[in-house]
Amino acid sequence: MSVFDDKKWLTEVFADSGSVFGLAITEKLDEVQSPFQKIAMYQTSHFGKLMVIDDVIMLSSRDNFLYHEMLSHPVLFTHPNPKNVVIIGGGDCGTLREVLKHPGVEQVTQIDIDEQVTRMAEKYFPELCASNNDPRATLKFEDGIKFMREVQPASIDVIIVDSTDPIGPGEGLFNRAFYANCLAALSEGGILVQQSESPLIHMPLLTAMRSAMLDAGFAALQTLNFPQMVYPSGWWTCTMARKNSAFNGFRVSDVQQAGFATEYYNAEIHQAAMALPNFVKKAFNAS
Amino acid sequence: MSVFDDKKWLTEVFADSGSVFGLAITEKLDEVQSPFQKIAMYQTSHFGKLMVIDDVIMLSSRDNFLYHEMLSHPVLFTHPNPKNVVIIGGGDCGTLREVLKHPGVEQVTQIDIDEQVTRMAEKYFPELCASNNDPRATLKFEDGIKFMREVQPASIDVIIVDSTDPIGPGEGLFNRAFYANCLAALSEGGILVQQSESPLIHMPLLTAMRSAMLDAGFAALQTLNFPQMVYPSGWWTCTMARKNSAFNGFRVSDVQQAGFATEYYNAEIHQAAMALPNFVKKAFNAS
Repeated sequence: MSVFDDKKWLTEVFADSGSVFGLAITEKLDEVQSPFQKIAMYQTSHFGKLMVIDDVIMLSSRDNFLYHEMLSHPVLFTHPNPKNVVIIGGGDCGTLREVLKHPGVEQVTQIDIDEQVTRMAEKYFPELCASNNDPRATLKFEDGIKFMREVQPASIDVIIVDSTDPIGPGEGLFNRAFYANCLAALSEGGILVQQSESPLIHMPLLTAMRSAMLDAGFAALQTLNFPQMVYPSGWWTCTMARKNSAFNGFRVSDVQQAGFATEYYNAEIHQAAMALPNFVKKAFNAS
Repeated sequence: MSVFDDKKWLTEVFADSGSVFGLAITEKLDEVQSPFQKIAMYQTSHFGKLMVIDDVIMLSSRDNFLYHEMLSHPVLFTHPNPKNVVIIGGGDCGTLREVLKHPGVEQVTQIDIDEQVTRMAEKYFPELCASNNDPRATLKFEDGIKFMREVQPASIDVIIVDSTDPIGPGEGLFNRAFYANCLAALSEGGILVQQSESPLIHMPLLTAMRSAMLDAGFAALQTLNFPQMVYPSGWWTCTMARKNSAFNGFRVSDVQQAGFATEYYNAEIHQAAMALPNFVKKAFNAS
């Protein structure tokens, strides 16, 4: 059995998969207890800076591009003409930065309940906050569930739920009542996308999310796969739910002519992310 | 910082990425020191049995299907008519089992230097060894590098290198001299495939492998992506190298009519595995 020195590592135990993941750290940079959660920042040896919320690894400088790009570009290139975008959660602002790369987007409202997450990101992930002053962006620090309940119906083209896991403040973002409010808030053909955990170790949660989205009245679902090293199993998904309409591919030529840089995402990767392994198809059909 | 009890975990530190991965174990089942390496078996809490060689995690009952299917089916459905297959390494016999699912394959010779790996697999992964008595299969326990140097030229359609990392016994399987012997051993249009580590954290190794394959005289390369939780970063690749010819897709309709079961692999997954992220394209073009 390998021996390793616990003191030099930030480790996270994933109880529901009997696994542990950790990154070597050289320094604890900061910690703040907000009204909602404990936010800690570390300097890692190989992955840049690391944000940890309530002892759960959120993102690192080095590999957050995978998650942020895949939560933003597939949904925006699937919608025919997204103009008004809302991000629920997303306090590190990495998703916001990706969304604002799309010149057709006219307005992005980000609603994170915890202002301290954004203050930490401004300090330690300035590259992710580089677009926070874009005139199209509005940052609100309030309850995203309440916002979605009260927003004008049929006013949003794309809703991106970039939240923590379905425990703690994120819990209310994974149920039928929230999805029904999202559905009402979306315009004709609008799309909700939400991070939907690991297909290898969280299948019951993933199928429950999909069922709740359909129960809420969404017309069609599409789950996308991508790697994400710092999350349990290193294999992650997001799930898109569309109002009124089926999914019908994505705007491939617009991707190819996008004119902005991405590290992971491109048209072939978008197509590839839609491929479902046999065991996933089987689980989706059975649920 | 999370605290976790080292004694209940099998952990592996990945020094070149400053990361650690581990699985919760309930029991150590076995350990043998062969002439080549130390082979240990554990019972995990969530991932079935676990084989660890020289303190490096090799495979678990639960997630080995990803690696074994991706090392076997893409190359066999890319080659137009593979009849004679050689596996170098592969002592756990999981790759052999997948290869033998192809009815067109007439002969599979597996050469692993360490018989003890297969003996352990027979005992603890009997499902992976279920096809070891297939009359088309020959298991040899000898040096794969020597075998490949001495085998009859142009006699093999597909070579699968299913080895440990390029340290220890596996080291000689990652260089130009070995690849040149593979090239000579392959028939016209034959294909070598080899596990090629993580694109996120082993890019220098991956590009060095690709360069060595081209230096040895292979005509074309194709790197495929897939998830593999128990390997560093959870994101893994294999690389195919073809003799004489470019790659030209794969036998899609044969995949769709394969008539055997796979848990991960299907035609869409094969296509998806070929998609390269922007940062990978950039690294391949620069090397």
